[in-house]
Amino acid sequence: MNLYIVMVVISWLAWLESGFMLIPAAVGLFYKEWTDSIAFVIVAAGSLLFGLLLKIIASIIASKRKVKRELYSREGAAAVAIGWIVLSLIGAIPFTLSGAIPHYIDALFETVSGFTTTGGSILSDVEALSHTCLFWRSFTHWIGGMGVFVFIMAIFPLMGGYSMNLMRAESTGPSVNKLVPKAQNTAKYLYGMYIGLTVIGFAVYMILGMSAFDAATTIFGTVGTGGFGILNTSITTYSPALQWAITIFMILSGINYTLYFCLLRRQFKDAFSIEEVKWYLAIILISTIMIAINIRGMYASTGDSIRHAAFQVGSIITTTGFSTTDFDLWPSLSKTILVLLMFCGACSGSTGGGMKISRLIIMLRTIRKELSSMIHPNEIKKIQMDKKPISHETVRATNVYLASYFFILLISTLLVSIDNFDFTTNFTGVVAMLNNIGPGLGGVGPTCNFADFSIFSKIVFMFDMLAGRLELFPMLIIFKLSCWKKY
Amino acid sequence: MNLYIVMVVISWLAWLESGFMLIPAAVGLFYKEWTDSIAFVIVAAGSLLFGLLLKIIASIIASKRKVKRELYSREGAAAVAIGWIVLSLIGAIPFTLSGAIPHYIDALFETVSGFTTTGGSILSDVEALSHTCLFWRSFTHWIGGMGVFVFIMAIFPLMGGYSMNLMRAESTGPSVNKLVPKAQNTAKYLYGMYIGLTVIGFAVYMILGMSAFDAATTIFGTVGTGGFGILNTSITTYSPALQWAITIFMILSGINYTLYFCLLRRQFKDAFSIEEVKWYLAIILISTIMIAINIRGMYASTGDSIRHAAFQVGSIITTTGFSTTDFDLWPSLSKTILVLLMFCGACSGSTGGGMKISRLIIMLRTIRKELSSMIHPNEIKKIQMDKKPISHETVRATNVYLASYFFILLISTLLVSIDNFDFTTNFTGVVAMLNNIGPGLGGVGPTCNFADFSIFSKIVFMFDMLAGRLELFPMLIIFKLSCWKKY
Repeated sequence: MNLYIVMVVISWLAWLESGFMLIPAAVGLFYKEWTDSIAFVIVAAGSLLFGLLLKIIASIIASKRKVKRELYSREGAAAVAIGWIVLSLIGAIPFTLSGAIPHYIDALFETVSGFTTTGGSILSDVEALSHTCLFWRSFTHWIGGMGVFVFIMAIFPLMGGYSMNLMRAESTGPSVNKLVPKAQNTAKYLYGMYIGLTVIGFAVYMILGMSAFDAATTIFGTVGTGGFGILNTSITTYSPALQWAITIFMILSGINYTLYFCLLRRQFKDAFSIEEVKWYLAIILISTIMIAINIRGMYASTGDSIRHAAFQVGSIITTTGFSTTDFDLWPSLSKTILVLLMFCGACSGSTGGGMKISRLIIMLRTIRKELSSMIHPNEIKKIQMDKKPISHETVRATNVYLASYFFILLISTLLVSIDNFDFTTNFTGVVAMLNNIGPGLGGVGPTCNFADFSIFSKIVFMFDMLAGRLELFPMLIIFKLSCWKKY
Repeated sequence: MNLYIVMVVISWLAWLESGFMLIPAAVGLFYKEWTDSIAFVIVAAGSLLFGLLLKIIASIIASKRKVKRELYSREGAAAVAIGWIVLSLIGAIPFTLSGAIPHYIDALFETVSGFTTTGGSILSDVEALSHTCLFWRSFTHWIGGMGVFVFIMAIFPLMGGYSMNLMRAESTGPSVNKLVPKAQNTAKYLYGMYIGLTVIGFAVYMILGMSAFDAATTIFGTVGTGGFGILNTSITTYSPALQWAITIFMILSGINYTLYFCLLRRQFKDAFSIEEVKWYLAIILISTIMIAINIRGMYASTGDSIRHAAFQVGSIITTTGFSTTDFDLWPSLSKTILVLLMFCGACSGSTGGGMKISRLIIMLRTIRKELSSMIHPNEIKKIQMDKKPISHETVRATNVYLASYFFILLISTLLVSIDNFDFTTNFTGVVAMLNNIGPGLGGVGPTCNFADFSIFSKIVFMFDMLAGRLELFPMLIIFKLSCWKKY
């Protein structure tokens, strides 16, 4: 691996995080939470220095020997994986420094959960946190949602065509397409739309009665598909109108951003012919109806049961993890639908996690093709999506993704079971972490949290969250020794 | 599909089953269980007539138009799937006719569970069954273990080279190799070794103190990796020596039969270099040690904990499903190891179920290759096993298998959850059915049974058992409408 270029990228990341931390510091000043504010300023300064140090080391390396300035796919993947770990390691410090979360591993869990937009917490009393910490906690969702390296690409003039390798490693879905020919412009468009959705959502939440602080933190959790709430009761106490608004913004955030891009360009026909989005909406509709019927007896009116069904379906399929009710009390059928939606996940090219609808479509079509070729052995057919053939590379990557996913899922469940919780807790806990959802069932249901797990299990969960967010390969590659050799 | 050839094959199957049923009829005579014996004779006669009827219809078709006598891969797959369904439909009748299992769906569940060597039961009191029924119940394991079509191939002079398509659809593992150039001889060798293992096991069980009846039924469940016991307590009450003997014969039955073939031919070097077998034994050893340590506190001595660990590991990895203790009471780590072993399964080319070790090896190597190619993009490497490159076809089939497996697993869990049992029961129940194991955890643990599920869930389970035994594709292909069109 070309360590030089990785160091350069990580130094930018440290500077960016330093800048981001000034926002909670300002929030702290506003709410007169001096200790918290100072903690964030100190860490911001530290992060700045750390970035500077990395940059100096990189310069020394560059002055001593000829270095390549290109970022190939292995460096892209490794930089993103290492970058996300560094981002979390730094981002967790203020929680411990301010005394909000005394144990660093817990703070790290919370931060990884934030950046990866998982939303699983180790806190049993969220409301005890200061405004500053609550803001940072939710803001990490926003930073991680669209991707921190995508942000870097949008603002730093990166190494030309090679910067796509960063985007590929950080963006979601089986194949990452540029919206426009230049990677940097693609990143700018993505962040533009992301900011647009955030601002609109913020306004809607405020109009419907939220305070500015509530609206800001909640919309960060919504558009980033994160799920950290600022109340112990998540979204339960907000008005039905607000719950519906959050449902809609969650679902909007799980849509492939290509759709919005097409809409902005007035390419309406293209926008409404994206197969993945049709499947996504169909799955949401069918699941909501099935659950609404199944839970009808538990709520006062049909309207309530539809609202709770739609909210939880939207929350789980987009891997947000907000809740308006304790779905762990629902009948088995409804709970199982939610577990299935956990695997399913949102659209590729969105901020949502999970396996992504497009991968499921590719898998289903691969199976159909295999059966077809058993029936008509001489037929040659290519798998298609959106009326275009899917490349052999994408199919292969999808298959390898599934295999890796399967192994990580099973091995994580095994490792976590050492803590001796029941199978439902362990299994759905890992599923909720790996798919970046937040709550699972049983001991990690929507009214529970991850605090009781051992440090070892928390480390496993952190790995799962990062692996899920970065879609497995970047996290696996840094564990392959040959990746670290010099080339 | 060429219905003519499928009918011919099914007619042979019906005759074969008719012949097999005379054995329990004879057992009934020996134990003076007249009603039972008569029931089996009646069904045997009916099966004979049914086969004759099919043969006549097939002949009429053949006389009216020119028919192809070749069995292509689609007919092979469809014939095997339909054949197994017919086999079960007929095999269940004596249970209901004799009054042993009054409801036909329950009897069918028990029979499918038998032929597919699953061993999951709907009976709460096995000991209430007559000797005749108990014998047939265990004998179905033996018939299904090596495969009923493999048996047909061994005794009927089949359609030349095309008969491999039957074997391919019925045998286990990602690629089926002929041991010897002629398919019929391969089938003969396989059954020869199978009978050999059965006879040796029977002798060992008798020497160690079992009655002839116990030894026969238990060895059928062992070498077929089935798991039906003749006592309500499964293997709990047998002596430690017998439990060890059963452990060893279960493990031997999960080994790729190629090993025995090499041993018979004195190709010792080949025999001991089969990678899959090494992995299989290593997994058994490691799992046993881990569980033995984990459950040490629950048993009187270290010897006991090792014995119980080894027995349960051997029983689950080979997908037999016998038990010497209620492993649902074990700590979470041990239970999770067992769940992982359920997925893992035995060696390909054995009578065991599950995904098969060789598939896992192929998947792991695919992942490693993908990571390698990210690090060295210009490197071209083929995945290998036993020092031979694995064909692209096999890798693709393995990937599609995993995707199908994943969908069937999730959708079955969803369908079964309608009965409103808890998640652990539903999920591990489906896992236990799809991998042909028998017991799961929770409500389907080793001391429980599948009786309480609805008829709908039982049908889902039956589909899963058949899909698991036939390795998915044959069962999926008959649901594809285009398969039924005339070609």
